[in-house]
Amino acid sequence: MNNIDYLRSVIRTVPDWPEEGVMFRDITPLFQNKKAFRKLIDTFVHRYYDHEIDAVAGVDARGFILGSPIAYELNTGFIPVRKKGKLPFETVQESYELEYGSATVELHTDSFKPGDKVLLIDDLIATGGTMIAAANLIKRLGAEVVEAAAIIDLPDLGGSAKLREQGIDVYSICEFEGD
Amino acid sequence: MNNIDYLRSVIRTVPDWPEEGVMFRDITPLFQNKKAFRKLIDTFVHRYYDHEIDAVAGVDARGFILGSPIAYELNTGFIPVRKKGKLPFETVQESYELEYGSATVELHTDSFKPGDKVLLIDDLIATGGTMIAAANLIKRLGAEVVEAAAIIDLPDLGGSAKLREQGIDVYSICEFEGD
Repeated sequence: MNNIDYLRSVIRTVPDWPEEGVMFRDITPLFQNKKAFRKLIDTFVHRYYDHEIDAVAGVDARGFILGSPIAYELNTGFIPVRKKGKLPFETVQESYELEYGSATVELHTDSFKPGDKVLLIDDLIATGGTMIAAANLIKRLGAEVVEAAAIIDLPDLGGSAKLREQGIDVYSICEFEGD
Repeated sequence: MNNIDYLRSVIRTVPDWPEEGVMFRDITPLFQNKKAFRKLIDTFVHRYYDHEIDAVAGVDARGFILGSPIAYELNTGFIPVRKKGKLPFETVQESYELEYGSATVELHTDSFKPGDKVLLIDDLIATGGTMIAAANLIKRLGAEVVEAAAIIDLPDLGGSAKLREQGIDVYSICEFEGD
């Protein structure tokens, strides 16, 4: 079994969570299993090792688990893209639509230097709302999104296609059919 | 300047956040600055390198940024201690008092093997409510808390003393006077 098939096999599917009919892809076994965790982080690190990344931005909260060790290994800083109301200093904000209502993500205004090459990381790309909002914040601060990366892409939900339409490269370890 | 004084100097104090009279200790500069980030993570890694840690448990959400690269470097798995309602599989829960109301943290029931030596990490120890609840969850699953570690301890708020009263060793990079 190659690395990618192995990592995909460690993801646990929890049916009917958080609501009936949803097949939830639980990535906590990927973090919990030390062999899988190391292979997971190393897969991203090897991909970006030669990209001269200046900073890794991870999305609140599973993107922190993924992005922080990648930043450490790439010898860059780690920037948390936070849900609204968590960052104490001056921020920029971007809102996006959810199935019901909307949500807002924030970045500290001093997160990047202009021209910084930023790797944007979250666990999952579904409709792409969070990733697009986070990418917009990075661009508003004058930095460049090298790639939007995730463990799982659900291409049926259209998020990765939307990101690519906006000129943002996308990478995921694996795909699942959307639910 | 030694490492600890250097790390302490990078923490940014934001006055009157989230409410008037509070001096908020903002650790995002420690993550953002690649030199500080590396020294921060390495300080914990060197402390625990010979402790035969089986798993690192980090508290939602800043504890994820800290705990995940430490787990990677110690070659262990990473276990997220999550706020209520975020974990899809079977969980154990523990509630604790806040200034107004209460909060609940959760762990997946299969997070540890009995007897696992667990390093528990969060960014800050204030009143200790979250750390004590997280430590209780770890013990309920039959694992052992080697130490409760944080970047900042606010000893005036009594959390680290309460943890020690319960037989849990505590380590922090630095202390600030409570607000």
